[in-house]
Amino acid sequence: MHIDELDTPAVIVDLDIMERNMQRLAGYCRDHSVALRPHTKTHKIPELAKLQIQYGARGITVAKVSEARVMRNAGIDDILIAYPIVAEAKARELALLARDTTVTVSLDSLEAAQSISLAAAERAVRVGILVEVDVGLHRCGVASPEDALTLARKVLVQPNLDFRGIMFYPGHMMAPLARQRELLGPVNQFMDEVYDVFARASIPIQVVSGGSTPTAFLSAEFHGLTEIRPGMYPFYDRNMIGAEVVAVESCALSVLVTVVSTTVNGRVILDGGSKTFSSDRFLAGHGRGFGLVVQDPAAEFEAMSEEHGHLSVAASQRAYRVGERLRVIPNHVCTTINMHERIHGVRSGQVETSWAVAGHGKLQ
Amino acid sequence: MHIDELDTPAVIVDLDIMERNMQRLAGYCRDHSVALRPHTKTHKIPELAKLQIQYGARGITVAKVSEARVMRNAGIDDILIAYPIVAEAKARELALLARDTTVTVSLDSLEAAQSISLAAAERAVRVGILVEVDVGLHRCGVASPEDALTLARKVLVQPNLDFRGIMFYPGHMMAPLARQRELLGPVNQFMDEVYDVFARASIPIQVVSGGSTPTAFLSAEFHGLTEIRPGMYPFYDRNMIGAEVVAVESCALSVLVTVVSTTVNGRVILDGGSKTFSSDRFLAGHGRGFGLVVQDPAAEFEAMSEEHGHLSVAASQRAYRVGERLRVIPNHVCTTINMHERIHGVRSGQVETSWAVAGHGKLQ
Repeated sequence: MHIDELDTPAVIVDLDIMERNMQRLAGYCRDHSVALRPHTKTHKIPELAKLQIQYGARGITVAKVSEARVMRNAGIDDILIAYPIVAEAKARELALLARDTTVTVSLDSLEAAQSISLAAAERAVRVGILVEVDVGLHRCGVASPEDALTLARKVLVQPNLDFRGIMFYPGHMMAPLARQRELLGPVNQFMDEVYDVFARASIPIQVVSGGSTPTAFLSAEFHGLTEIRPGMYPFYDRNMIGAEVVAVESCALSVLVTVVSTTVNGRVILDGGSKTFSSDRFLAGHGRGFGLVVQDPAAEFEAMSEEHGHLSVAASQRAYRVGERLRVIPNHVCTTINMHERIHGVRSGQVETSWAVAGHGKLQ
Repeated sequence: MHIDELDTPAVIVDLDIMERNMQRLAGYCRDHSVALRPHTKTHKIPELAKLQIQYGARGITVAKVSEARVMRNAGIDDILIAYPIVAEAKARELALLARDTTVTVSLDSLEAAQSISLAAAERAVRVGILVEVDVGLHRCGVASPEDALTLARKVLVQPNLDFRGIMFYPGHMMAPLARQRELLGPVNQFMDEVYDVFARASIPIQVVSGGSTPTAFLSAEFHGLTEIRPGMYPFYDRNMIGAEVVAVESCALSVLVTVVSTTVNGRVILDGGSKTFSSDRFLAGHGRGFGLVVQDPAAEFEAMSEEHGHLSVAASQRAYRVGERLRVIPNHVCTTINMHERIHGVRSGQVETSWAVAGHGKLQ
């Protein structure tokens, strides 16, 4: 099928670019002996997770137990759930999963450890644990190396848990490379203290899981890192362009939309809004705009309703007509894919493959 | 099942409040002889659409042809698609639908009319048309009464189309009632001119479709209005509280979440972020916050990641513990429901019913 035959809005992925992006980071990880464990919350598509593994990823990361189940059912058997599991129902699901899957979970509280331990003991399975530390984002993670040690000791005495190491998420480092290097200093200092504290306590750390798409190619400069969990690198997005992580040529994913109205002066209305793109804001600079119009960078994607995208074309020389199609690179690829039941892989203008977003709507 | 047994995050609807909200507006419409045609994009749930019809709605409104199909398959046979249909694939779907359904479509371009006419002629069906006019939101709609007449004349000569009347969306009137009355003046002036222009041309207008949830109880003051298309009124949300349209007691829908981390000082992390709530901003006042924590209005829902809700509890006296549950009224109920595959109707703490969001992910 030619892409012109796709009904819009439709998410399309340029397969050449995506494969190049996957290969490039896998090559970097191989060269620097850092394991690659892609965060598949970005796409929630088992076929893409398997492709990432085929290119050299060691296993995958997910955010939710229900996402892990989708991936396990597709045959993936080494899964890190990078999210604190505290509810009983989820701990039971996790224990079920651990019967035939290598499962690791990050946590930052005794409550989470106890809940998982109880469920794992009931099923007589073992669950790997990473203690999450806060290296600067201030979202989850214990605040100090000493707190990490205290929690690790508690994990070590919980039945059916295997303490495997430390996890952090450097989400505050979404910036150009030079700025990343400045922010890396305090992270390395913190982690060095963690290593010292654990060494003095004679508690071995097997895994140090970090990384993100913006910092992926800086991984070799993080002290002690054994694996990274980037999500967006197969696709990139407008936020990654805004943070000067990549150029537009590396963006593999865009949303195909149709112009549905041109009656308002200086405006063009597209058939995709917050239910197509998500309403995630642009994280760089002025924070304006909901996407980049590939055919017309002078158009500003200034607002959206649920099903309407509002382009301001006041600064554009382009003539727009109702019925024509445009491609828009979204602000945030993870939340955009999450709005769709299916996305399409294209090459040379042809739809080569379509993938069901099997983890779509999996929130528990 | 007790709501404590629901895994989180989960959308719950207080059935007593929802039924009261539905009855109240249905009563107003009956009293003022305005037809009620609820916009079901809010919930995308056929069972709720049918309940709205049972309470007195004349038919329903949807945003997409694929949503219309979901509703038709559930037995609803009078559907307004309040969205310009310009692509061939959609026009063909629309014509299929029109074989056994009363279908009306709004449009503001000749291109849309031609596309629908062609598909309707092929199937030998008729499609009702409302010409959309812009009364102030500047999104879709022709700019002047004369343009409306010009387009209506073109619709009248297209095969298999029935010109039925005028549609507008007063989306710029989301404000407290007193401010709505100020904004109503220019809208009525514009519509009076529309009626004059059409009367002089001897073109009858059968339907004048307007309305929205914020303006629903002002409907009788809109000149010439025959029907309204409110979406959110069964549930309301934080934006409706912010616009002083309702008080918190009228909000029927909330998201049940679990506290998953409390390690960062002054912060509490919930197991719902942009993939649970959507990232729609608060439209009132300062624009801050992603929801209202029912148990603790002093907590500010200040930020979100995809699966993490970040509460700032610096101003709160409440003690939070990992594992406890909270209820959060979202900023925008339409985009929140849209993130879920299923939502739950509760009464007296019991889950009385669960509905599949059958139109979930229907974007074409």
